[in-house]
Amino acid sequence: MDILISEVGPRDGLQSVSTIMSTEAKCRWIDALSEAGVCEIEVGSFVPARLLPQLADTAQVVAHALSRPGLTVMALVPNLRGAERALQAGVHKLTVPVSASPAHSLANVRKTPEEMVAEVRAIALALRDYNQSQSQQSVRSVRLEVGISTAFGCTLQGPIAPDAVIRLALACADAGADEVGLSDTTGMANPASVGNLFRRLGAELGIRAGAAHLHNTRGLGLANVLAAFEAGVRAFDSSLAGLGGCPYAPGASGNVVTEDLVFMFESMGLSTGIHFEGLMRARAVLQRALPGEALYGMTPLAGLPKGFVGGPA
Amino acid sequence: MDILISEVGPRDGLQSVSTIMSTEAKCRWIDALSEAGVCEIEVGSFVPARLLPQLADTAQVVAHALSRPGLTVMALVPNLRGAERALQAGVHKLTVPVSASPAHSLANVRKTPEEMVAEVRAIALALRDYNQSQSQQSVRSVRLEVGISTAFGCTLQGPIAPDAVIRLALACADAGADEVGLSDTTGMANPASVGNLFRRLGAELGIRAGAAHLHNTRGLGLANVLAAFEAGVRAFDSSLAGLGGCPYAPGASGNVVTEDLVFMFESMGLSTGIHFEGLMRARAVLQRALPGEALYGMTPLAGLPKGFVGGPA
Repeated sequence: MDILISEVGPRDGLQSVSTIMSTEAKCRWIDALSEAGVCEIEVGSFVPARLLPQLADTAQVVAHALSRPGLTVMALVPNLRGAERALQAGVHKLTVPVSASPAHSLANVRKTPEEMVAEVRAIALALRDYNQSQSQQSVRSVRLEVGISTAFGCTLQGPIAPDAVIRLALACADAGADEVGLSDTTGMANPASVGNLFRRLGAELGIRAGAAHLHNTRGLGLANVLAAFEAGVRAFDSSLAGLGGCPYAPGASGNVVTEDLVFMFESMGLSTGIHFEGLMRARAVLQRALPGEALYGMTPLAGLPKGFVGGPA
Repeated sequence: MDILISEVGPRDGLQSVSTIMSTEAKCRWIDALSEAGVCEIEVGSFVPARLLPQLADTAQVVAHALSRPGLTVMALVPNLRGAERALQAGVHKLTVPVSASPAHSLANVRKTPEEMVAEVRAIALALRDYNQSQSQQSVRSVRLEVGISTAFGCTLQGPIAPDAVIRLALACADAGADEVGLSDTTGMANPASVGNLFRRLGAELGIRAGAAHLHNTRGLGLANVLAAFEAGVRAFDSSLAGLGGCPYAPGASGNVVTEDLVFMFESMGLSTGIHFEGLMRARAVLQRALPGEALYGMTPLAGLPKGFVGGPA
């Protein structure tokens, strides 16, 4: 597999949808994604249920997802309390959002970026203890990922200095994150800024440089993915049908569309481990679960080119 | 100006729309594009009116477009007869489509690719005579561009060998084309194939390597543009609001969207000479002229990022 595609729809996507999807429907969706060859899914987040009632059943969803062979089950946690709940649920990987914008950080989690780095440190320590306690049972270690949000600009704060982003990423790695990725939370990135920042991240963090979480807010999603790929990134977040609202405008998709992303890489001869027809089945499952919700993506409309060979046989 | 954006909506876009737009509406649209800073527009095509009634008024549209200061007025011509009509109308630039797929070429113009090369030669000779006859009046020479269609694959023929595409491009240059570009007519290109083929074209043709005409059929439009840019291409065709149908599916956009393309390059710090707010005014003109027609593009929905500076002051 040349490219790791990490599906974020069940967390990032649902967070932006007002409908509360049933646990059963979420499980069918995750099953369909996994059957298509998706090998990492962010299945929910451990935040207080009153804040995100859509994701209140994350522990049950994790329990189901753990039954899928070969699937890395991931959840977002904003703090140590969430991390403890996630570990209890049995996730394989935690992701903590740390915003590079003080204004966004305060608005989002009521903590400064520095306070979030302290939270990352606390989570990493808890995780070390947890992994040590589990090691006798020879299960794989739970990993900790940080995503630096608003890395390419913030609607509240304006431009974010690349130096500040890299400093924050280093601080998170120093605090114990296994990998640190960058997120274009606001859709302000462009191929030049994406290439520059990921090249710097790779130079500073080496193998601990993490995934690219890019949005399609202004249509640049796949161009930014390409720029990140050329800068050495091999792990990408995306969302089936581009689920995940845009902070700006109704009708504008937020996340990079998994279907188009898979088509792009497979057509370039890079394997994603994902089978397009399976994704189309997952899309149908999603459409039934969210009737009336707009689904994005161009490849699903156009279909694969005649004779196209991509994805595992 | 770092990037030449050649707007093809009034030709390529309208060709796919069943509505017959009035000459007056076309002229308003062209005016609005030109006011936004668009400096090259393919305003129509010189084909028999019974084949494309939407473009039957191209000579009148050319006459109006010629009144716009600084605008390069371009028209598509499929053969010598069309070229003669275009020269009579006073265009600045002719573009001839030559398909790399024999099946597509026969279906489209009832000529083989080799017969089309002969047509290019005849047009180039006519153009030489025309330019010589005009030179006393010290006007600029009319230029001849060839676009190699289905350069990245054909739905009728299947894959097209890159060697065959390059051979055909060289034959067209040899026949007298001032520049030869490549078109992803069917939306089958990917960043790897675009990069490879444009690098070869540039190596073979140097300054006579022409524009990239890329489609957004499967969402890869801007990623393919980026790959072409990195391969040295500096001229790109696109269409306001992505106008231009897709041969596959209703709801799937064909052409790269001018608005998103301008945003991408300007946000990378590359000047297009085009002002985004002006494009939005042109979009409104287009929407009024084609009520009910789906307009594409993400940047128009999301708006420019706060504090974004792009385009000429």
